[in-house]
Amino acid sequence: MRKRIPEATIRRLTHYLRCIEFIKETGAEILQSRDLATFCSISDSLVRRDLSYFGEFGTKGVGYSISELEKHIKKILGIDRTKKVGLAGVGNIGRALLNFPLLKNGFSIEAAFDIRDELIGKKINGVMVYHENDMIKVFKEKQLEMGIIAVPQQAALDVANKMIEGGAKGLLSFALIQCPLKKKVPLRYIEIAAELEILSYEIEKEE
Amino acid sequence: MRKRIPEATIRRLTHYLRCIEFIKETGAEILQSRDLATFCSISDSLVRRDLSYFGEFGTKGVGYSISELEKHIKKILGIDRTKKVGLAGVGNIGRALLNFPLLKNGFSIEAAFDIRDELIGKKINGVMVYHENDMIKVFKEKQLEMGIIAVPQQAALDVANKMIEGGAKGLLSFALIQCPLKKKVPLRYIEIAAELEILSYEIEKEE
Repeated sequence: MRKRIPEATIRRLTHYLRCIEFIKETGAEILQSRDLATFCSISDSLVRRDLSYFGEFGTKGVGYSISELEKHIKKILGIDRTKKVGLAGVGNIGRALLNFPLLKNGFSIEAAFDIRDELIGKKINGVMVYHENDMIKVFKEKQLEMGIIAVPQQAALDVANKMIEGGAKGLLSFALIQCPLKKKVPLRYIEIAAELEILSYEIEKEE
Repeated sequence: MRKRIPEATIRRLTHYLRCIEFIKETGAEILQSRDLATFCSISDSLVRRDLSYFGEFGTKGVGYSISELEKHIKKILGIDRTKKVGLAGVGNIGRALLNFPLLKNGFSIEAAFDIRDELIGKKINGVMVYHENDMIKVFKEKQLEMGIIAVPQQAALDVANKMIEGGAKGLLSFALIQCPLKKKVPLRYIEIAAELEILSYEIEKEE
């Protein structure tokens, strides 16, 4: 196990990656910590502190090689090699994810799952849809490392446990999972309804 | 301005709403704090503490009236009346949101915006798509209170500033917004790529 790094730093690393993707399109090869700072609306010194967590890898007065920095950050995040992902639920969100270009940035959806007969055996954006009953088998066969859960809430716990049984080492869920999982693995949420509701609360609070 | 409530409590209120939606389908009319606790995998006393922030509104030994609790939580979150939302970007994520049933739970997308000619003037799931050039005008005319930003990153700052100029009081963005906004309003993010990257980091860290 590696040393503990604050989640806020890790999140900023993902923002630095967004900045790098952005700057790369201009053809630049070098960037300064202040470029990252401006992009992320944070201080220069915070950027330098974040990057120093991972050893010295810029040249004072010259800056960072963009390709080196990108390689380094991707290594820290564990996406220097592509991670294989299984996606449960091919509804609106699931389909959006199958078309999401950023997923290609280190992640590859290798199989999708649903329970609707008319979808099983079809390919969506090149990805085969299997029945959720075959999830454990397909996860094992294809050695899928991560699961994305985009099924209705009542199915989320069952799907999560199947993914774990199939060998998933981490889960990202769009649905709230009730009750603890069979086995504890890293689990993150994207809660669209909750974010809207919290935003609504924050708006009311300001008034 | 109301008293300050921790964001973690507000987030749990949104989870209690998910639980209520779930339990309502069974036809139940009363629930206990331990039902919420089990659903959210947290302690009974934490649930009671959260709810006590907002005054006494359960009956000891009897529990909470589900409809009362729902009404109460929705009032706190400011969704006891429907909030009007404008959506910028009708790509994969934007289309998923236009089909997202939870948005009807207190939020109504009243207008969508894009820059692609072939989409302008069309209705998607009953919602008219306008050109982004008309965003300020449409936000004002329709009195849209919230903006959802689902455009590519390079367009996000411009779109956010237009929404604010049109009167939006809060923004939810799927794209990272560089540089500060013209005017400070509550701004929340849903960062799908970042969540995947952080999950990847967490998986690596475990190994």
